Amino acid sequence: MPKIRSIVSAIALASSISVASAWDALPTKAPAPADNPTTAEKVELGRILYHDPRLSSTGTVSCASCHNTMLGGEDNRPNSMGVHGQTGGRSAPTVWNAAFNEVQFWDGRAASLEEQAAGPVTNPIEMGMKSWDDVVKRLASIDGYPALFNKAFGDNSISKDKATKAIAAYERTLITPNSAYDKYAKGDKKALTAQQIRGLNKVVELGCVSCHSGPAFNGPGSFQKFPVIDNAYLEKQYQLSADKGLFEVTGKSGDEHFFKVPTLRNIALTAPYFHNGSVKTLEKAVKVMARVQLDKKVTDAEVADIVAFLNALTGEFPKQQMPTLPGTLGTSFN
Amino acid sequence: MPKIRSIVSAIALASSISVASAWDALPTKAPAPADNPTTAEKVELGRILYHDPRLSSTGTVSCASCHNTMLGGEDNRPNSMGVHGQTGGRSAPTVWNAAFNEVQFWDGRAASLEEQAAGPVTNPIEMGMKSWDDVVKRLASIDGYPALFNKAFGDNSISKDKATKAIAAYERTLITPNSAYDKYAKGDKKALTAQQIRGLNKVVELGCVSCHSGPAFNGPGSFQKFPVIDNAYLEKQYQLSADKGLFEVTGKSGDEHFFKVPTLRNIALTAPYFHNGSVKTLEKAVKVMARVQLDKKVTDAEVADIVAFLNALTGEFPKQQMPTLPGTLGTSFN
Repeated sequence: MPKIRSIVSAIALASSISVASAWDALPTKAPAPADNPTTAEKVELGRILYHDPRLSSTGTVSCASCHNTMLGGEDNRPNSMGVHGQTGGRSAPTVWNAAFNEVQFWDGRAASLEEQAAGPVTNPIEMGMKSWDDVVKRLASIDGYPALFNKAFGDNSISKDKATKAIAAYERTLITPNSAYDKYAKGDKKALTAQQIRGLNKVVELGCVSCHSGPAFNGPGSFQKFPVIDNAYLEKQYQLSADKGLFEVTGKSGDEHFFKVPTLRNIALTAPYFHNGSVKTLEKAVKVMARVQLDKKVTDAEVADIVAFLNALTGEFPKQQMPTLPGTLGTSFN
Repeated sequence: MPKIRSIVSAIALASSISVASAWDALPTKAPAPADNPTTAEKVELGRILYHDPRLSSTGTVSCASCHNTMLGGEDNRPNSMGVHGQTGGRSAPTVWNAAFNEVQFWDGRAASLEEQAAGPVTNPIEMGMKSWDDVVKRLASIDGYPALFNKAFGDNSISKDKATKAIAAYERTLITPNSAYDKYAKGDKKALTAQQIRGLNKVVELGCVSCHSGPAFNGPGSFQKFPVIDNAYLEKQYQLSADKGLFEVTGKSGDEHFFKVPTLRNIALTAPYFHNGSVKTLEKAVKVMARVQLDKKVTDAEVADIVAFLNALTGEFPKQQMPTLPGTLGTSFN
């Protein structure tokens, strides 16, 4: 479990950020852990596994079903739909730029992409496989996978460790650089409109950058309490407090309602908003955030400026070849 | 409804096929109807629509979910899983080379790819949209679609007619040429192994080509009765007669148990087999076909030869770029 910075230290850090240094363009490469260096062969295997619905019990749900690489990296639903049409209580976070999160899942319970990748596959309401042993057995039964694992890892054997490493390696390539904001951050001062610059300044003024700063707008702290301020009216509409976040994992007093700080990259493409997907529009999400996190009221004009700025965080999506998944020759997969 | 050739005429036709002329390589282009010429812009729009899960009520099921372009053009399930985890009684036919079918759907109720494309979208157990009016409304609400329709059809307006034309135009590009068999048919006599050639000869000798001939192995007739011969033992195992095929559509005496003759192209990749997906392996499918269609028993060695030949019908899958689906900026799709 990664260290949780307190609200106080996060705000203290934010106050020391000068605007000039805070506005960093998104790196075009993501750092990889020492035990899983990114290689072309691993990325290729990961790309195939990521899009393979046979990683689910029914053969209908792949990683991409909920974290759609053809869309904004998720499914635009309040909550995702797993095997047999089941749904959970949280909204799928985007896979784009997830490599820049220090922790994964809304409650931050995974410290790496590798650890995250292992979870949904055996979650009964997501991909519904009984065990990773079953997953490994199924992958081994598909003609072509042993050779792909061999290319990526140097031998034919298939394991949970290798599969999740390959998926994580692929996910580290899912980066969306060159947004209007990135061009601005790199010095092209015409890349943002006057309204977008007003929005950017408002984001600083309001204090949004306490939690959403750095190149992926998801730092400096990995976690934050949400909501910070009780608001009965908004609670009734959006049930923001029903989910206790990190506390649901740790059961530790003080962890109640702590969530991973989500990236703001491509936020215009990932409606509906918040951990429970309860807020349908970005305008409303901005208003709610100002109220329950910063105790501020924002005017419609200010919201429009901020939303214009947030739209400038939509990056360029790398062109990808559609994978051809290996087949089970002359037999079905289960 | 296309004209149905009787068993008798189909067999009569088949008997006149000389082996030399019957073995045609797969064309690399599919013919398009006069009112829907294939253009790059239409194909591009169709590729996007085909992979867009927002064409389903839940936003989770696209055409590609059941007719998976990353696999053998279907889902390797006995029956497909639509919205809310619902399943029907038939197995998804492959989209690869569907352009060479004279009729579409297992019961052949659609005379064109355009007509077929309209069906699943509003089928309550498949994609579950209430009406095409709702589909059109949703597409119009997604930023980017009007411009894509404009590129493809010369104006911004969205309609069922245009959407299904674009999807059909895309599907006409889903052709898998250059199988070992195609190379053989073009004159490379070393492209097939000795076993595969034995299998090919056996297929002719048994009479499989009565129904499965021509470049896509789905002609000369579009329809065939299945099963032709009652077999209580096999019926008990596979319930092949439970579904009355074309009769379920027409209610016409004589149409009972008539089905579209499916292509044998890429058959090794499309298990499980038959309209109800009841037979898990290609070996078993060959045995059942010989028994209930041709009243023949085949030895295990003959089956192995035929299956080897059928594996030679696996073609080359065209490399495709993964589409980037247009987003709904700052709002969710419904």
